[in-house]
Amino acid sequence: MNHRMIRYTLGWLLLFEALFLLAPVLTALICRERVLAAFLWTMAACLAVGLFLVRKRPQNTTLYSREGFLIVAFSWILLSLFGCLPFYISKEIPSFINALFETVSGFTTTGASVLSDVESLSRATLLWRSFTHWVGGMGVLVFIMAFLPLSGGQNMHIMKAESPGPSVSKLVPRVRTTAAILYALYLALTLAEFILLWCGEMTFFEALNTALATAGTGGFGFRNDSMGSFGPYIQIVISVFMLLFSLNFGSYYLALRGRFKEAFSTEVRVFLGIVVVATAAISVNVISAQNLFPTVGDAVRHSFFTVSSIISSTGFSSTDFDLWPWGSKCLLILMMFCGACAGSTGGGLKVSRIVILFKGTLLELRTAIHPKQVKKVTMDGRVVERSEVRAIALYAICFAGVFAVSLLALCFEGADFVTGFSAVLASLNNIGPGLSLVGPSRNYDFFPVFSKIVLIFDMLAGRLELFPMLLLFSPVTWKKQ
Amino acid sequence: MNHRMIRYTLGWLLLFEALFLLAPVLTALICRERVLAAFLWTMAACLAVGLFLVRKRPQNTTLYSREGFLIVAFSWILLSLFGCLPFYISKEIPSFINALFETVSGFTTTGASVLSDVESLSRATLLWRSFTHWVGGMGVLVFIMAFLPLSGGQNMHIMKAESPGPSVSKLVPRVRTTAAILYALYLALTLAEFILLWCGEMTFFEALNTALATAGTGGFGFRNDSMGSFGPYIQIVISVFMLLFSLNFGSYYLALRGRFKEAFSTEVRVFLGIVVVATAAISVNVISAQNLFPTVGDAVRHSFFTVSSIISSTGFSSTDFDLWPWGSKCLLILMMFCGACAGSTGGGLKVSRIVILFKGTLLELRTAIHPKQVKKVTMDGRVVERSEVRAIALYAICFAGVFAVSLLALCFEGADFVTGFSAVLASLNNIGPGLSLVGPSRNYDFFPVFSKIVLIFDMLAGRLELFPMLLLFSPVTWKKQ
Repeated sequence: MNHRMIRYTLGWLLLFEALFLLAPVLTALICRERVLAAFLWTMAACLAVGLFLVRKRPQNTTLYSREGFLIVAFSWILLSLFGCLPFYISKEIPSFINALFETVSGFTTTGASVLSDVESLSRATLLWRSFTHWVGGMGVLVFIMAFLPLSGGQNMHIMKAESPGPSVSKLVPRVRTTAAILYALYLALTLAEFILLWCGEMTFFEALNTALATAGTGGFGFRNDSMGSFGPYIQIVISVFMLLFSLNFGSYYLALRGRFKEAFSTEVRVFLGIVVVATAAISVNVISAQNLFPTVGDAVRHSFFTVSSIISSTGFSSTDFDLWPWGSKCLLILMMFCGACAGSTGGGLKVSRIVILFKGTLLELRTAIHPKQVKKVTMDGRVVERSEVRAIALYAICFAGVFAVSLLALCFEGADFVTGFSAVLASLNNIGPGLSLVGPSRNYDFFPVFSKIVLIFDMLAGRLELFPMLLLFSPVTWKKQ
Repeated sequence: MNHRMIRYTLGWLLLFEALFLLAPVLTALICRERVLAAFLWTMAACLAVGLFLVRKRPQNTTLYSREGFLIVAFSWILLSLFGCLPFYISKEIPSFINALFETVSGFTTTGASVLSDVESLSRATLLWRSFTHWVGGMGVLVFIMAFLPLSGGQNMHIMKAESPGPSVSKLVPRVRTTAAILYALYLALTLAEFILLWCGEMTFFEALNTALATAGTGGFGFRNDSMGSFGPYIQIVISVFMLLFSLNFGSYYLALRGRFKEAFSTEVRVFLGIVVVATAAISVNVISAQNLFPTVGDAVRHSFFTVSSIISSTGFSSTDFDLWPWGSKCLLILMMFCGACAGSTGGGLKVSRIVILFKGTLLELRTAIHPKQVKKVTMDGRVVERSEVRAIALYAICFAGVFAVSLLALCFEGADFVTGFSAVLASLNNIGPGLSLVGPSRNYDFFPVFSKIVLIFDMLAGRLELFPMLLLFSPVTWKKQ
């Protein structure tokens, strides 16, 4: 194992974290807030440790898959451990485990909070929370790779391990250029949302926060009722952008190059189909439940907002959907499992996996009847190899396994089934709010420490798509070769 | 498609159902009960329709997989439609959908009841309920095959489609002899339990009912508190036999032939391991919850009984486990998914599938680190082909899909999440009681008609392992070739 290269990459990661911290530092300076010291201390710590780790560039820059997974796992843990220091030092979140929970929830774009009153936080802290979403959404290592040629041609192992979706396609032959294109698209979309929000009823600071948190499909807000107190214009802009950030970024690149047919892939079509059907079903269900909304327009708007928020794994709320009838809530739960498109900033199993599994199951049924017919699963004209179908199916099984063990741990520490189920669901799929005791009007503070550790693991495992986090605990990873 | 052969087999099925009806007819005669007429009418109907269908033996007895699946699906539906007539005619269950629900629940060995007061039923009806468990447990077509050479050498397609587990192994070269051996073992074990129960505090009738319902891992009782009012001896005998009927019947055959090492397979070891660990965990959890049981012995006995009942998918209860802490209930829910051993009368996903999926996932993780190492999943010294792992994984995915759609249907008809979740869980895995509104002290009567139809489908789909029931709705099945 190339320990030096791991150390070196982690060093650069901390230097970049110091850079990211400039955002809240500037905010604290402008708003003359007392939390400035906490951010400066953290920045200094990142710089010191980072510089120590990068003091010598390794001669051998070869990376294999194993190093790729380990770098990604350690990076995200380290990023969160340093990233939570400002909350802890400034005493805005006095408990360390809570500060860590909030930070992991930020970087993994979950948006599950332990805070009941976010309105009392300083602006620098609010911005840092949203900014962690933005950095985590597209991937921090992808960001570093866009600027820094870390390792010869083997960056792909890192990119694969950090990017969501069953297969990562390079848009252009060079990984570094691909990373730069992705971040350019990401920045452009974020800016577009920021401007549209600023043109509405939001202040500069509110629009910035919201745009950052939407872009990462995170969901940290700055008001205690999330987006509930904003008007229809703001809510609709956010709904649309939550969906835009849930699409495969590769599709935008293809569309910009004029390849519209490829851009409008099966995954995109199925995703948008689910959104339309779910919005319609929930609207009808919510309207037929009496006294929830004064007008049909309100019902449809809140349904659309909630569907966008849940399927994109953002977790903003425009209303307390925990009060909706169970049919709607059950549909929301299923959409949490489904998630967004591969190659987006969203969480969940990803629509492309669901489509491939659906087609694979149909093929199994057909094979049961006609054992001698040899057919294969195809998607967008491409044959999906049997080994890929198997890998995706086992990924889903693995997901179910992590889910089951986490749920068991939470229930044995006292959570009821709906709370435990939706907390694990919302963490593992990086949604944020769940139902019952972790519903949109509640928070995660009441969980005991061990449950919080389980949920922190789940958030990381969900964002990094299980393997990097699971491999940390596998003897095979640590065996010398 | 060989329509004549399907018709012919279904005819024989009804003739056998008429034979099975002799059991309640005799009971009604001995006890001089008024329900006699209802059973005689049903018997006459089975005979009439059966004889009409078998009037001419088809010349071409060839069966392919497609016919195998269709015969199994139609057999179970027909069996239930005729089997529910006595309940309906005698007005002991006045609603037809309820009568059908109860019968499907019987044949599929689910044991979910729509009745709140089983103590008011006639003895003939009680015996018929238990007897449907016994017939459904090992498989009605397996029974017919043991007596009747239906089709040349292609009975295997029927046996495969009806028997639980990922792969059906013939114990001896001939399918017919295999079926006969399985039923002989089944009968011997049922007799053994009957005698042990009769030696205890149970009457002849109670012991017979209990033995039949345990053997099929069904769960219909004859007292409103299931097995709660019996003493420790009876409860322990039932616990042990629920486990015995959850083991692979092939293992018993191997053990009788002296091949103990093969009989004590990985699946059997893992199954018993889960039982021991779960009993211990639930005992501790229940004891630490105050005031549930007077003594530690009681707590352990009820934990053991409940674990046996749930993992074997029987569904008897010795106490209302819906009152237990959520840690225990969550463990029970996970065991409902897991289920018994393949080739037993139990339901669920089956332990062997879980083991193969677990090993497959570990192998995926290993392959992620060392892509060039080519390894395979092995079990009991046998290589599990990649295609088999894929098929099992897709089976689990398909299971999850049916689960999700059913849950959604129930929730949209008004069920809350825990009730809907555990009702679908208990139906699809053929357990019987669930939690909350379908807990051990409740029943399924309150569900609206459409929800009941969904649950009936789920019970059949669960017992027949999805494919036969799903293929009924697939255009491929009906396409001419």
